[in-house]
Amino acid sequence: MIGVDWGTSSLRAYRMTEGGQIIARASAPSGILHVAAGAFPAVLRGIVGAWLADGETRILLSGMVGSRQGWVEAPYLPCPADAVALSAALIEIPFDGADVRLVPGLSDRDEAGTPEVMRGEETQLIGALEQIGDQGLVCLPGSHSKWARIERGRIVSFRTWFSGEAFAALRDGTILGRMMDDAPLDDAAFARGVARSGDGGHLLHQLFGVRSLALFGELLTGQTASYLSGLLIGHEVRGALPPGETIHLIGAGALCAQYGRTIALCGGMARGIDEDAAAYGLARIGRAAQWAV
Amino acid sequence: MIGVDWGTSSLRAYRMTEGGQIIARASAPSGILHVAAGAFPAVLRGIVGAWLADGETRILLSGMVGSRQGWVEAPYLPCPADAVALSAALIEIPFDGADVRLVPGLSDRDEAGTPEVMRGEETQLIGALEQIGDQGLVCLPGSHSKWARIERGRIVSFRTWFSGEAFAALRDGTILGRMMDDAPLDDAAFARGVARSGDGGHLLHQLFGVRSLALFGELLTGQTASYLSGLLIGHEVRGALPPGETIHLIGAGALCAQYGRTIALCGGMARGIDEDAAAYGLARIGRAAQWAV
Repeated sequence: MIGVDWGTSSLRAYRMTEGGQIIARASAPSGILHVAAGAFPAVLRGIVGAWLADGETRILLSGMVGSRQGWVEAPYLPCPADAVALSAALIEIPFDGADVRLVPGLSDRDEAGTPEVMRGEETQLIGALEQIGDQGLVCLPGSHSKWARIERGRIVSFRTWFSGEAFAALRDGTILGRMMDDAPLDDAAFARGVARSGDGGHLLHQLFGVRSLALFGELLTGQTASYLSGLLIGHEVRGALPPGETIHLIGAGALCAQYGRTIALCGGMARGIDEDAAAYGLARIGRAAQWAV
Repeated sequence: MIGVDWGTSSLRAYRMTEGGQIIARASAPSGILHVAAGAFPAVLRGIVGAWLADGETRILLSGMVGSRQGWVEAPYLPCPADAVALSAALIEIPFDGADVRLVPGLSDRDEAGTPEVMRGEETQLIGALEQIGDQGLVCLPGSHSKWARIERGRIVSFRTWFSGEAFAALRDGTILGRMMDDAPLDDAAFARGVARSGDGGHLLHQLFGVRSLALFGELLTGQTASYLSGLLIGHEVRGALPPGETIHLIGAGALCAQYGRTIALCGGMARGIDEDAAAYGLARIGRAAQWAV
């Protein structure tokens, strides 16, 4: 089968054996924001056409491709949900030359009754179950990072944090950004921001400190972005981290490393999950649908 | 004397009697961001030239005109400070045809030792003392709002909140803004945001709710900006408001009204201060300098 994790800014495709082993991969910057309305079939064919010509007949999609701005809008499935529930809710998409289906996103409500939504992360979570085990708390860093609770193999609840997109907006759209440059991550300044997030003050007050520390020369131009990042991720981790629990981190590279470091600085433990979780999840949901096997 | 409150985006000038009564006023959009380096004398002359021709000889300036991006950078005076201390620290600025002086800004350190700075608000605070009395807590809403503690007629400490600029960046630079329009303030949505700020969740989580409520049709396009504003001001007020104290609000129009409403919604009491506080402060500091009388 073919699995495609199709997000906002990019797309990753996998050709897999019946058992879920990855035998080929492809990626493209063709995230849904870069695909014109009506162009989704052509973009997909451009990526996986050779695999179809080679005999593949089934394509399973996940991610923002199922949103209002995507190919077909899929209704959210409410939590709790597992691979079986997701596989029973697949959306069929007409496509010439293959059987294309779409994994729906999940919804939840927080303690105050405010809606929660995810698209794509549910598939990564299902794919990570083998490594996580039957239960645990999983963090998926990103523009809108997700913290999901797994119990008995089901995604029972999740919460979204806006820290990533808030960081970009504060850096690019406020006076704080005027004191920043493109310096690489400064570990010490990042840790200082994480420490600041734990001093009991409110974030909206502490944000001004990014400016005042720079004004007083107590934070250098090459340090302010790292400090701001540590401050925001620090607030998120302190707010989302239960005491004494190991956090499973799904995601790539630098951002996951920053979350792992923050969790450690805040007294928690973190372990990384294989980056191909989305592929494993697509295979698992495909199998549960008794479709890819 | 002439007093000029010269800020980042605009300028307000007052011609005053020796006793501090305003006899003429002028304003212009010539905030320091709109004045080219070296053009400050010409801009000032353009605004107050007629008053100088009519016999005025002294001009006292306050505000961001004393910042690095302004006319002359004035060192900050540390808290606590009163009118006498400020008047003793005036900076003389060479100017053809008048004696021009500048009120320095104030600095402080918060509980964690992070610097605090203000420029212009110190003069408004001094001008408001007559209405506030010898002690009290004063809030000056703005892009970087200030909460200042007055004791025995002195500004003893203050804290800055970044809520105003954070609101603009979140509205203009994130996905939240895509669900907003230019609708006027929606009182009910604003109050809902204020209520949300008190549900015990973290702001960085609650921000995502602005999007998810809109996605689920539980917040309309004309309501999202008001809700976000209430959420941010609600966090600020809850964080800065001591129980059982009346807050003195300095500032103009709509923003002050929103702060007053939020303080009331959070169980506090607020009273407004005359908008000409800056003029009274300039007169008072001038008198303390034994210069304007």
